[in-house]
Amino acid sequence: MCTGRIVYPVFYNISFESAEEHASETETHVLKIGVIGGGQLARMMIPAAINLALDVRVLAEAPGSPAEIAATSVGDYRDAATVLAFAAEVDVITFDHEHVPQSVLAALVATGVRVHPGPDALLYAQDKLLMRAKLSELGLPTPDWAEVRSAAELQTFLDAHGGAGVLKTPRGGYDGKGVRVVRSAAEATDWFTAVAESGDTGSLLVEELVDFTRELALLGARRPGGQSAYWPVVETIQRDGVCAEVLAPAPTSDTAVAAEAERIARALADGLGITGVFAVELFETRDGRVLVNEMAMRPHNSGHWTQDGSFTSQFEQHLRAIADLPLGDPAPRAPITVMANILGGPVEGTLADRYPLVMAQFPEAKIHNYNKEPRPGRKVGHVNVTGTDLGEVRTRAREIESLFQG
Amino acid sequence: MCTGRIVYPVFYNISFESAEEHASETETHVLKIGVIGGGQLARMMIPAAINLALDVRVLAEAPGSPAEIAATSVGDYRDAATVLAFAAEVDVITFDHEHVPQSVLAALVATGVRVHPGPDALLYAQDKLLMRAKLSELGLPTPDWAEVRSAAELQTFLDAHGGAGVLKTPRGGYDGKGVRVVRSAAEATDWFTAVAESGDTGSLLVEELVDFTRELALLGARRPGGQSAYWPVVETIQRDGVCAEVLAPAPTSDTAVAAEAERIARALADGLGITGVFAVELFETRDGRVLVNEMAMRPHNSGHWTQDGSFTSQFEQHLRAIADLPLGDPAPRAPITVMANILGGPVEGTLADRYPLVMAQFPEAKIHNYNKEPRPGRKVGHVNVTGTDLGEVRTRAREIESLFQG
Repeated sequence: MCTGRIVYPVFYNISFESAEEHASETETHVLKIGVIGGGQLARMMIPAAINLALDVRVLAEAPGSPAEIAATSVGDYRDAATVLAFAAEVDVITFDHEHVPQSVLAALVATGVRVHPGPDALLYAQDKLLMRAKLSELGLPTPDWAEVRSAAELQTFLDAHGGAGVLKTPRGGYDGKGVRVVRSAAEATDWFTAVAESGDTGSLLVEELVDFTRELALLGARRPGGQSAYWPVVETIQRDGVCAEVLAPAPTSDTAVAAEAERIARALADGLGITGVFAVELFETRDGRVLVNEMAMRPHNSGHWTQDGSFTSQFEQHLRAIADLPLGDPAPRAPITVMANILGGPVEGTLADRYPLVMAQFPEAKIHNYNKEPRPGRKVGHVNVTGTDLGEVRTRAREIESLFQG
Repeated sequence: MCTGRIVYPVFYNISFESAEEHASETETHVLKIGVIGGGQLARMMIPAAINLALDVRVLAEAPGSPAEIAATSVGDYRDAATVLAFAAEVDVITFDHEHVPQSVLAALVATGVRVHPGPDALLYAQDKLLMRAKLSELGLPTPDWAEVRSAAELQTFLDAHGGAGVLKTPRGGYDGKGVRVVRSAAEATDWFTAVAESGDTGSLLVEELVDFTRELALLGARRPGGQSAYWPVVETIQRDGVCAEVLAPAPTSDTAVAAEAERIARALADGLGITGVFAVELFETRDGRVLVNEMAMRPHNSGHWTQDGSFTSQFEQHLRAIADLPLGDPAPRAPITVMANILGGPVEGTLADRYPLVMAQFPEAKIHNYNKEPRPGRKVGHVNVTGTDLGEVRTRAREIESLFQG
């Protein structure tokens, strides 16, 4: 059955169940799926939902959100009444982001609606200290870390780790926000004040400054019963703390690194009981180790390449996983796919104003426009380019990106 | 720039314009696109519209139509007031089908809205006699044909063509409806009565019964200024007059046949001034000729394979063409793609009820479900399968199709 597909042998990873096992599932199976949050991740689930005729509805934050075409409600995801009213019309709830408060998640679960990923799994994505503790409990490799409650505790950690560390707020950070490299505890005074006032634990997370050679990401999906599928490990390239480029698969990755990345992802998926697509962001160190950096419990920027570079996009896979349908084939469709984020967009006008220029030069480029107002540094779209030669594909992706900027 | 793509050298056909030519187009370019008709073709334009953030709105025939998610109006496409009210909110009008009356099209054009394809081009898709006359005028190869107004005229044609012919109602036929093989004029009495009563010209179209070895289709797209792009010629396999399977590209097709198919499509596109995606259905004869059978002025069943088998799907290409954006790359993404229609669907329940079975056995299959009630013979979805070995890919496609039936 694999004949004729571009199968990347090491990474082509899906734990198939037998057809017989499924043959007994004859009841009507299509669920109404509610997505909390109307951002670009919700938006990009919609094409997959249309193909499979899955009923996807969105609770958007505001009118005009990227996922507006499927928005059936507009309201605040922090308000339990709003979320419960939305959830009453669907069979399963999933998320565009990880920010729904645990109290609202608990109220959702109490109504009996399926919530995927569940509150227990989401908690780790919401709180970096809990995640670090869980990773250590699972025996997975991470940078050295500590929970620090004071400048003195922080200084002790820094002194033990070459005088430098990466300080993180446990909650609320993303795209480089809530992350700071510090070389003395004095540089952290404002954050200790802020977390003390926030009503949280008052703690910060500090991690050793890892001497990494590059960043990798491993994207997977898991069904409620445990079936899982993994895309090949990719390299992610950040600019100013934001993902700028993804190279799929990670170039010159030796099989040991790829296997270790996948081992970590599998252990996390099963250890946390994740349902849905998730991503593990990793450091590859100078001495050949793989360490967990961050984790996301949802489709992720490092997986946008799958829309045009894999047989199954992360958005289709997420819908399959949360609807408890057999997972799709994560095999790559091309030897190389490069995803380039469009960060900011044009100074004047919209991305679409650049279509004549971009499309005439790059008729093969797959453009994904989130329909968001351009703003410096904002993720407003991305482009996927496929090919066989990494340098050539990457050059094309960067040229396209630059045509959408400035 | 072609490195890294699976380029099928003979067929990779897009008339590129220079980037400089486009560089001057700096005005805001995104149009509001109105689609008349809410069937599966309109439905399948929506994922492409979401990717490119094109604003696509649908005038659907009824609530619950396949394209409902983008429906902003529900009403009768034969009613000028309904259509004009819908068109007032958009910049360009296109179609899910070819049935909008010429009087309504003329009223649309009079308002100044862009109509693509235009009434002149649509007329040929609406009237098979006009199409045959136009084809002959353009010097393109067709089966021998005649306009017949009486049993006597029909008998004369039959006598001159071996005693048999294919009789067609000039208007309203599709999927084998309005087509009948006749061996005597007596078999046509009811149709002559019907067309006489219909208020049309009272004529029928008769064509010679072609000794064809197989049916081919050539799908292309054309922008208002004339830029055009052509996908490789495909083989279409009909059952009971309905397209059942498409093999892309057409197997063992010699380059002469492929070149002739494309020559015909180019001549038609330019000769009729088409804007948008169109399809030419062809006969390949035992003696190696290629004859035009039918023509469609819209995305077409013979092009569904492009959704997963080409860099640019026919639906994205149609939107690019009617929005006057540079056309996308029509190159295949795999050596072989087979599209199998799901005709009828399950006797009980819905297509989605079969997902557990199908997806577990065929994780690589791309399923397209139109969200239509199953009914014998009805096109309710299709599946695309890619690979390198035609026999193996076709077997998989048929197995999947059979899992959705019965």
